[in-house]
Amino acid sequence: MTDWFSQHRPLLDKAIDACARRYSWSGWPESPSTKVHGEEKPAAGRAAFEAMLGNDFSLGQPGVSDWVGEEVSPYTGKPLGIRYEAPAPEALFGAIAAGRKDWAAASPQQRMGVCLEILQRCGEQLFANAHATMHTSGQSYVMAFAGSGANALDRGLEALAYAHKAMSDVPETASWERSFGGDGAACLDKRYRLVPRGVSVVICCATFPLWNTYPALCASLATGNPVILKPHPAATLPVAMVAKVCRAVLEEVGFDPNLVTMVADTRAAPAALALVEHPDTAIIDFTGSPRFGSYLEQNCPGKQVYTETAGCNSVVLESTDDLAATARAIAQSLCQASAQMCTSVQNIHLPAAGVKVAGERVPLAQVQAAICEAVDGWLADPRRAATLCGTLFDPSVTDNIARYRELAGDRILRDSAPLHYAEFPEARTASPLVIAATESDRELYRQEVFGPVSFLIANSSAEACLADATANARDCGAITSHVYSVDESFIEAAVEAYHAVGASVAVNLHGMPINFAAAYSDFHVTGLNPAGNACLADLAFVTSRFRIVQSKFMRS
Amino acid sequence: MTDWFSQHRPLLDKAIDACARRYSWSGWPESPSTKVHGEEKPAAGRAAFEAMLGNDFSLGQPGVSDWVGEEVSPYTGKPLGIRYEAPAPEALFGAIAAGRKDWAAASPQQRMGVCLEILQRCGEQLFANAHATMHTSGQSYVMAFAGSGANALDRGLEALAYAHKAMSDVPETASWERSFGGDGAACLDKRYRLVPRGVSVVICCATFPLWNTYPALCASLATGNPVILKPHPAATLPVAMVAKVCRAVLEEVGFDPNLVTMVADTRAAPAALALVEHPDTAIIDFTGSPRFGSYLEQNCPGKQVYTETAGCNSVVLESTDDLAATARAIAQSLCQASAQMCTSVQNIHLPAAGVKVAGERVPLAQVQAAICEAVDGWLADPRRAATLCGTLFDPSVTDNIARYRELAGDRILRDSAPLHYAEFPEARTASPLVIAATESDRELYRQEVFGPVSFLIANSSAEACLADATANARDCGAITSHVYSVDESFIEAAVEAYHAVGASVAVNLHGMPINFAAAYSDFHVTGLNPAGNACLADLAFVTSRFRIVQSKFMRS
Repeated sequence: MTDWFSQHRPLLDKAIDACARRYSWSGWPESPSTKVHGEEKPAAGRAAFEAMLGNDFSLGQPGVSDWVGEEVSPYTGKPLGIRYEAPAPEALFGAIAAGRKDWAAASPQQRMGVCLEILQRCGEQLFANAHATMHTSGQSYVMAFAGSGANALDRGLEALAYAHKAMSDVPETASWERSFGGDGAACLDKRYRLVPRGVSVVICCATFPLWNTYPALCASLATGNPVILKPHPAATLPVAMVAKVCRAVLEEVGFDPNLVTMVADTRAAPAALALVEHPDTAIIDFTGSPRFGSYLEQNCPGKQVYTETAGCNSVVLESTDDLAATARAIAQSLCQASAQMCTSVQNIHLPAAGVKVAGERVPLAQVQAAICEAVDGWLADPRRAATLCGTLFDPSVTDNIARYRELAGDRILRDSAPLHYAEFPEARTASPLVIAATESDRELYRQEVFGPVSFLIANSSAEACLADATANARDCGAITSHVYSVDESFIEAAVEAYHAVGASVAVNLHGMPINFAAAYSDFHVTGLNPAGNACLADLAFVTSRFRIVQSKFMRS
Repeated sequence: MTDWFSQHRPLLDKAIDACARRYSWSGWPESPSTKVHGEEKPAAGRAAFEAMLGNDFSLGQPGVSDWVGEEVSPYTGKPLGIRYEAPAPEALFGAIAAGRKDWAAASPQQRMGVCLEILQRCGEQLFANAHATMHTSGQSYVMAFAGSGANALDRGLEALAYAHKAMSDVPETASWERSFGGDGAACLDKRYRLVPRGVSVVICCATFPLWNTYPALCASLATGNPVILKPHPAATLPVAMVAKVCRAVLEEVGFDPNLVTMVADTRAAPAALALVEHPDTAIIDFTGSPRFGSYLEQNCPGKQVYTETAGCNSVVLESTDDLAATARAIAQSLCQASAQMCTSVQNIHLPAAGVKVAGERVPLAQVQAAICEAVDGWLADPRRAATLCGTLFDPSVTDNIARYRELAGDRILRDSAPLHYAEFPEARTASPLVIAATESDRELYRQEVFGPVSFLIANSSAEACLADATANARDCGAITSHVYSVDESFIEAAVEAYHAVGASVAVNLHGMPINFAAAYSDFHVTGLNPAGNACLADLAFVTSRFRIVQSKFMRS
C-alpha cells in the first residue's frame, strides 16, 4: 500500500506543532492570484467547474433510486443543472456495512495516510472548488478560494492532528507482570485496539459548505468510522467534489469507496432525519440552524452529537483612540460575505451617552454615523465591494432584509440596497441594513438574523452594553464577541463577563478582518453557549469517535 | 498556597508513565499485613472505624434538613447506627454555586495539587476504610484493604493522569501574527482558559463504593467542576470518609469545601434523580444497575453521562492443557467477593461434546465436576474461604440465590450453602450456586444475576459457545470475557468475535485472580456494549469535562 502516512508526515507534524503553539500557519495557498499560480491552473479550475454544469455528477454509489439537484447560482440566477445521487437510506447503510470491518482493522497510520492524501488532492482542486462555492454559497471568488479552500482544508488537517494525538495516546501493546500471593508472577501480553463507534453523518451548511465538513470528515474517518456527507440542497457541488476525491483515494488503496458517501436531497424532501435516526449511525456532526441543531442535541440519546449553529455575535464599543479605524473594523464584519458568516457580528452595543474617543465623549449619533460611513467606505469601489460582500446565497436572505426594514420603520440608520457587479449583473446582492435599537427592541436582536442586518444598540451605559451582550450570548449563543476599549479595567471586566457566559472574546481588533477564525490557533466555538455544543477542534472533538478494546494473553 | 502539585509531581509523573506503557504498578500498599505496616496503624484504623459507629457523621454541609442512615453490617447483621447529612437539593446547589468561580479560576496545577493531596490523605485512612467497606459492602478485610483501597486510589490517580494530559494539551497563551492584504501585520496575543462544564454528580454503587468514585471525582474536580457524591444507602460510610477528606483539603487551602458534597439518601426516598435533573448538573457518573444506567443514558440530553452498569460476563472453555488449573481459575472468579464484582464471570460456555484436555476430549459431565470441585477446593479452608468470598452485601442477594435454586430444579450442579466464619458467626454468606444450562435456558442467563450464581452452559460446539457468549455480550453487556483454548486459530477467532461486539477478552488466564482489573494497564469497560457507555479511564473520560474559552488582544 502506498505509504501516504510517511509521505505526508511532515505536514502532519507541522500541524501538530501549530496546534501546540497556536501560531499562524496554513498548509495551502490562500491567494488565487495568477502571480502565485500562473495562468493555467486558475483557467483549468474554471473549465473543470464549467464542464460539470448541466450534467449528472456521478459518484457511483449503491442504492441510487433517484437523482436530485436544485442549485441556483446567486451570481447568475440560473440553475446549475447538476443532478446528484440520492441513495435510498437502507440500501446505502447496507452497502456501507460491507467495508466497515476492513477500515476498522486498518492501522491508525493507514487511515491517517488516506485522510492526509484526501486533503492533498482536495488542495489540488481549489480553483474548481472556488467556482463551485461561488455559484452555490454565493461567496466571492477570493473568499471561496481562501475561506472555503485553504482555511477549510487547514481545519481538516487540524482535526487530523488531534485525531493523531488521541489515537497515539493508546499504545498497541504492553507487557504486564506481577505476583499475587504465593502463586509466582503472572505475565500478561496485552494488546489494545481502537474501535470506531459507527456510521458518522455530517450535515453541511449552505454558506460555508466545507468549513466544518473537513474537520468532521477527517475526525471520523481517521478514527475508523464510515462517513455519510449530507450537503445542503443549495450547496451540494463543493461537497460532492470532496466525496469524489475521498472515494477515489479509498478505492485506489483497496478500501471500499462506500466508506465515504454523499446523500443529496431537496428542500421539499430532506434526508437528514432518516440518516441520523438510523440505528447504525453513532456520530452526528451538524452545522446549520439553531432549531435543528438543538433538536439533534436533545433527541439523539446514545449518539455522539457535535453541533455548530449560530448566535447573535456582539460588539461592545466602550472607548477607542481611533473611531474611524474601529468603525472600519466593525463595518468590514457587517459587509464581509454579506454577514452570512458564523463569525459575522450583528449586535453593536453603544453607550447611549456616547463613546469615549481619545478621552473625549463622542455622541451616539456621531458614532452611529461613523459606522455607517465606514460601511459606505468599504463599498465605494465596486470591485472591492464584490470581493468583500459576495452575494446572498438564497432568496430567503433578501426576504430577511425586507422584513427587518419594515420592522425598523424610521430607525433605519443605513438602508440596504443592491450592489452592482459588472461581471454578474444578475447577482443577488444587498448592502448592509443598519438599524438603531434600544433595549426595548430586544425581541428583534436576541436571535440570529441571517444576512446583512445589524443593530446599533444604545444601552444606558458601557456596563449595560456588556450586561446585554453577555446575557444574549448566554441565552441566544455567540461564536464571536468583540470589545473595543482603551480602559484596562473595562477590558478585564468584559473578558470575565464573556467568559462567564461561555463565550470567547476578541479585544481591540483593527486592521484585519475581525471575522477571521484561524485554524490551529483559535478554538472555534466554545460548546458552552447555545451556538454549538462542541469545539472544532480540540481533543474532545475526536476522543469520543473511537473506543478501546483490549485482549490479554497469559505468557506461557 | 501549599504547593501540593510540585510535592506530588513525582507520583503523577509515574502514573502518566504507567498509563503510557501500561505496566503493573501501584501507588499504594495492597497488603494490610502487620509485617508491612506494624501493629499500630491497623489497630488505629479499626479503632477509628469503631468510633464512628452509632454516631452522626458530620460533614458540616449547608441546607441539611434531615439526617439518614440505614447501613447494616453483612458481617454482624447489626445496624451501624451512623446517620449522614441529607441536604435539600435546592439549598445544596445554591451553596455549591458560591465556590464555583474560584475553583474554575484556579490553575489546573492548583486543582491537580488538591486532588493529589486528597488521594494521599485517603491513602492514610486505608485501614479505617477497609473496616468501613467490610461492614457496608460486605467485602473481606483483604479485599476491602486492597480492592477498595490501593486499587481504587490507583484508578483515581489514573484519571488524574488523563486529566493532566488533556488539560496540558491546551497552552495558556500564544502569539499570532500574519498580514492580510496590504494592511501590514496583525499581531495578536491570545489566552486560552479551561472552563468547567458544571456540577458533577457521582452516583456510587454498593459493592465497590470507591472503585469508580475516585476516578469520577478526580476527573471532574481536577477539571474544575464541583462534585456531589451520592452514595448507595447500603454503603455510605466509605464515601462519607472520602467526602470529609475532600472538604478538609479544600478548606485548608482556602477553597470552598462545598466544592465536594455528599447527599445521603434511603432506599425509600432516593435522591439521585433530583440531583441529576437539576439544571446546574452538567456531568453524571453512574455505577449501578443497567436499568437506571440506561435510563440516564437515554434521558439526560445535553448532559455528559458516563455509566458502568453490568453484563453477563462469560468464559468460553474450548480446550486446555491443564483442566484442574483452568477449573481453579474459573472457580476463583465464582467465589471471589461472592461474585458481586463487575468482573465476576457468570456464564461458562462448554461444548456439549466435552472439552479437549491435552489433546483428549473430556466429557461435559467431567468438566462440570472439575469446576464444582475447584469451587469446593477454594472453600475447603474456612479462613481462606472468608477472605475470598466475604459476605453478601444485601439480603436481596440471598433472595437471588433462592430464586435461581428454585428455577434450576434438578439442574443444580453445585448447591449454595452458608459459609461459616469463626469471627463473624452472623455473617450473611453463600457459597456458589452452579447450574447446568443449555441454550434453551437463555432467558435465565442472558442477564446479570447479582451474586454467586453461575451457569455451565452446554452449547452444541465450541463455535456455538463463542456465538452464544458474544451475542450475549452484544445484547446484554460484558465487562470481562475469558477464553481458554490451546488452539491458536480458535483463540484468534474468539478475540475477533468478542472485539466485534465491543468486548475486551482475556485468554488463558491461570494462576491469578482472573477478576483482577489493573489500573494504568487495563482499559476498564469499553463503552461499546450495554455494560457501560464509557471507559474508566481514557482520554475520552476527561476531555469533555471542560471546554476552552479564549481571549485575543491586538498588540498595540
